[in-house]
Amino acid sequence: MEKGMLVVVSGFSGAGKGTIMKRITEKYDNYALSISATTRSPREGEEEGKSYFFVSKARFEEMIDKDELVEYAKYVDNYYGTPRKFVEDCLNRGKDVILEIEIQGALKIKKKYPGSLLIFMTPPSAEELRSRLIGRNTEDEATVNKRLSRAIVESEGVEAYDYILVNADIDTCTEKLHNLIRASHDRVEAHLDLIEKIRKDLRRIEDATSNI
Amino acid sequence: MEKGMLVVVSGFSGAGKGTIMKRITEKYDNYALSISATTRSPREGEEEGKSYFFVSKARFEEMIDKDELVEYAKYVDNYYGTPRKFVEDCLNRGKDVILEIEIQGALKIKKKYPGSLLIFMTPPSAEELRSRLIGRNTEDEATVNKRLSRAIVESEGVEAYDYILVNADIDTCTEKLHNLIRASHDRVEAHLDLIEKIRKDLRRIEDATSNI
Repeated sequence: MEKGMLVVVSGFSGAGKGTIMKRITEKYDNYALSISATTRSPREGEEEGKSYFFVSKARFEEMIDKDELVEYAKYVDNYYGTPRKFVEDCLNRGKDVILEIEIQGALKIKKKYPGSLLIFMTPPSAEELRSRLIGRNTEDEATVNKRLSRAIVESEGVEAYDYILVNADIDTCTEKLHNLIRASHDRVEAHLDLIEKIRKDLRRIEDATSNI
Repeated sequence: MEKGMLVVVSGFSGAGKGTIMKRITEKYDNYALSISATTRSPREGEEEGKSYFFVSKARFEEMIDKDELVEYAKYVDNYYGTPRKFVEDCLNRGKDVILEIEIQGALKIKKKYPGSLLIFMTPPSAEELRSRLIGRNTEDEATVNKRLSRAIVESEGVEAYDYILVNADIDTCTEKLHNLIRASHDRVEAHLDLIEKIRKDLRRIEDATSNI
């Protein structure tokens, strides 16, 4: 069985990543969403073990020490990290595992797993981004502004990503994401073994022919 | 209008490139097939200005001198080249232009047009490749063997390609090629301008807010 692909989705806060992730896993069954561990408090409606694993700072630091995380980062005073076991189990079962993580973590993933796919999601404009953040209505203005400032910094490093997805429409963006991931299964690295085998076999055929 | 993408399709002789090219342009209207100029003799059924522009050696060398070719290469004693004007006209009209060329030319294209997409097409195995070459029945055994030898050399450099497409089935391969090209319109380079604009706008919003 072909091993799954590690797909990292990052993007501006308010880019609609959560909605797209939900949609793509509902529509196609080859995806598994990685669930992050975090030390931040749950927002309304967020469920333990579904949205996040909500853990204490002490437990998180234990996970770091025991190398139980693929990557972790600190963001606005809280830890966020990706538990290793779930990711590797899914990849081995042939699932494409999607991680929704910040850019710092994404770049660490790319180093550790060079075959991973980095996708950055953005709304069509800065104004759209601002109105989506305000529309969410769960945070005060200071937090919104902090996020806007953070966004400027956050997109630094995006040049190292593979694709940028402009989310102007949920359905279109979901299909594009699915296509990108399907296409990436044919990246050159994925088939170099086959080419090497064909070369060897061609040499064998050639030798056999010239010996007649 | 978004400029078209330059797509280079190479691959083993007998990989089925011609069939896939025909199929994709029949099915979708956003593609234009580049027509090569060559000094080799027409095969049965090949039409001037459709399969190739068949030109004399003298005329081909004049095209080289006048810089009328995007790339050219010599292969089995004949010249093959890509006339520049047709390619650039199509790209400017927003068409994705597909060039079916050898690996030597492909690597030159990638240097001149870094945004181009390189795709290498292969049959699923060396045996399959051999039987397809024999099945074509237009060439004698010596030529087939020459091609097999050439194939070994020809795949050298494939590491520089973007994708490898295994052509086990015409319809599947056509769809995969179409998806690869669609996906590549969202490669990070294509949207860096947008990200830069969003960064600038965010800075403007931030400045406006902090001045209140």
